[in-house]
Amino acid sequence: MNPKVQIRPLRFDDRDQWYELWREYLRFYRQRLPEEITEASFRRLAGDDQQLHGLVAESEGRLAGFVNYLFHPSSWSLTQVCYLEDLFVDPPMRGGGIGRALIKAVYDAADAAQATTVYWMTQEFNAAGRALYDTLARRTSFIRYER
Amino acid sequence: MNPKVQIRPLRFDDRDQWYELWREYLRFYRQRLPEEITEASFRRLAGDDQQLHGLVAESEGRLAGFVNYLFHPSSWSLTQVCYLEDLFVDPPMRGGGIGRALIKAVYDAADAAQATTVYWMTQEFNAAGRALYDTLARRTSFIRYER
Amino acid sequence: MNPKVQIRPLRFDDRDQWYELWREYLRFYRQRLPEEITEASFRRLAGDDQQLHGLVAESEGRLAGFVNYLFHPSSWSLTQVCYLEDLFVDPPMRGGGIGRALIKAVYDAADAAQATTVYWMTQEFNAAGRALYDTLARRTSFIRYER
Amino acid sequence: MNPKVQIRPLRFDDRDQWYELWREYLRFYRQRLPEEITEASFRRLAGDDQQLHGLVAESEGRLAGFVNYLFHPSSWSLTQVCYLEDLFVDPPMRGGGIGRALIKAVYDAADAAQATTVYWMTQEFNAAGRALYDTLARRTSFIRYER
Repeated sequence: MNPKVQIRPLRFDDRDQWYELWREYLRFYRQRLPEEITEASFRRLAGDDQQLHGLVAESEGRLAGFVNYLFHPSSWSLTQVCYLEDLFVDPPMRGGGIGRALIKAVYDAADAAQATTVYWMTQEFNAAGRALYDTLARRTSFIRYER
Repeated sequence: MNPKVQIRPLRFDDRDQWYELWREYLRFYRQRLPEEITEASFRRLAGDDQQLHGLVAESEGRLAGFVNYLFHPSSWSLTQVCYLEDLFVDPPMRGGGIGRALIKAVYDAADAAQATTVYWMTQEFNAAGRALYDTLARRTSFIRYER
Repeated sequence: MNPKVQIRPLRFDDRDQWYELWREYLRFYRQRLPEEITEASFRRLAGDDQQLHGLVAESEGRLAGFVNYLFHPSSWSLTQVCYLEDLFVDPPMRGGGIGRALIKAVYDAADAAQATTVYWMTQEFNAAGRALYDTLARRTSFIRYER
Repeated sequence: MNPKVQIRPLRFDDRDQWYELWREYLRFYRQRLPEEITEASFRRLAGDDQQLHGLVAESEGRLAGFVNYLFHPSSWSLTQVCYLEDLFVDPPMRGGGIGRALIKAVYDAADAAQATTVYWMTQEFNAAGRALYDTLARRTSFIRYER
C-alpha cells in the first residue's frame, strides 16, 4: 500500500467525506437508507459507542475508504466474534492495497479483543471483492437467509 | 405442528437432554467444541444472560429441538438485528413442523424486540434445511468469508 | 476413528475387496470404465509405479475405504503439488472418521514429499463429502471446466 | 483471430515480455510469488523440461498472451490427462480470439499426446473468462478444495 495511506478511527470531522463514501457504498448495493439511520450510524461509528466501530483510510488528507465492524457473542465461543459489516474503497483509489489494509486493521482489532474469528458476507457475484477476499480469508460453504 | 409440541425458553433442568441434542448438532457439523464452551453456552442460553437466547421444542416431556439466537447492532438499522445462530431438530422428530415453529418463535422474539431483520446462515448443500428455509425466508446472494 | 482401523498402502492381495469398493465408487459417480483401465490403475496403485499412489483403510481384515493421489509439477511452485484424485469410504463404515483419516494420510504423504499443497475436487452438491471437507480444508472459489 | 497472431512455444528470448505478462497475471490473482519461482518456472516452460509446457501468442513482434499446461497420470485413464494451469491475454489485446486460440493450441497438444481430457479451473466469478470457456468446454459441477 502507498505509504501515504493511513488507517485510523473515524472522527466526527470526517463527516462530509465519509457521507460521500457511504452514499456511494449504498449505491453499489442499490440501497436507500433513511437519512436518520445514516446520521445515527455515523455518530455511533465516530463516537465512543462501544458497539459499532469505524475505521477509515486517509490518503493525503482525503478519505479513500472505510470499514465498519462489531463484536457479538456466540454459542460457539467463550469470547466474542467479530463481524465486519461494511467495507468500501473509493473506486479511483482501488488496486493499491487499501481494501486489504482495512481488512487487516479489523483483524488487528479482533486480535486485540481476543475475538475468535472475523467474518463477513459478500454477494457471490462480487468479483472484484472476492478476488481480494480469496487472498485474505476462507470462502466458506455458508449462504445467508433473511426473513 | 403436532399440538403436543410446545416452544419455550431453555431451562437449567433441560441440561441432560439439551446436551444430547447439542452433541448431535455438533456431529452434524463434524465439529468438536471444548466442554467448557458447551458448558458456558448452556448456562448463558438457559440463564438470564441478556446476550444469548435459547428456545426448545418440548414434546411429551422430551426435548425435540432447539434454537439459539442473539441480537447485535448494525450500521444499517436504528434497532438491533437478530442472528439465528443455531437450529436443530432431533432427526426422528423431523418433518412435523418443529423446525418451522422454532424459527417462527425467533421471528416473534425479534418482533418483540423491534429487530429490523432475522437472518441465519446455512451450508449451500444443506438440502433438507434449505427446503424448509425457502418457505420461510429469502435466500440471499450473500456468502460468508471467514478469516 | 476406531483404533482398529489402519491406513496403509494398497497391496496386490487387496484386489478383490478393492475392486468392490472401486465399483461402488464408480456407481456413485454413475460412471463406467473399461475393465482394462481399472485393471491398469489397480496395478499402478498397488505396485511401485512412481506416479499413482493408493492407500486403503483396513478394519478387522476388511477394506473400509481407499484414497488415490498423485504429484504433479506446477508453475506456481518449485516443488510438486499433490492432487487427491479419488476418495471412497464404504457406506456402512461412514461416520467413524475413516474419510478424515484417509485425507490426513495424504496430507502426511504430501508433507513427506514437500509438496506445497494438497487439493481435490468434488461436486458442489456432494453434501456428505463437503460436510467433511469443510472441516479439513478450504473450499475455494475455483470450478472445473473440461474439454 | 487476427491472422497476424501466431501461437508458438515460449522461447528464452521471450523473457522480458513474458515476465511482464506473468506479473500482470499474478496481479489479476492478487498473488505474489518469490522471484525464484517465476525464474524457475520460466526456465522450465521455455526450455525442454518435459513437465511444464508454455505457449505464447505473438502479434507483430509482441507477446499478447500465454498459456501453460502439463500432463499428469490419472486412475481414470490409461493415458495422461492435460491440465491447463495458466492462461492470460494482455488486456488491450482481448476480444480478438487470442484466448480461444491459446486454448485450442493446448487441445492440439493434448491430442498429439493422446491425453484423454483437458481441464482447467477458474474462479466462479470470473465472468469474462467463463463467457469464453462456455463456448469451448463444459462447465462441470466440480469445485476445488485445498488444504
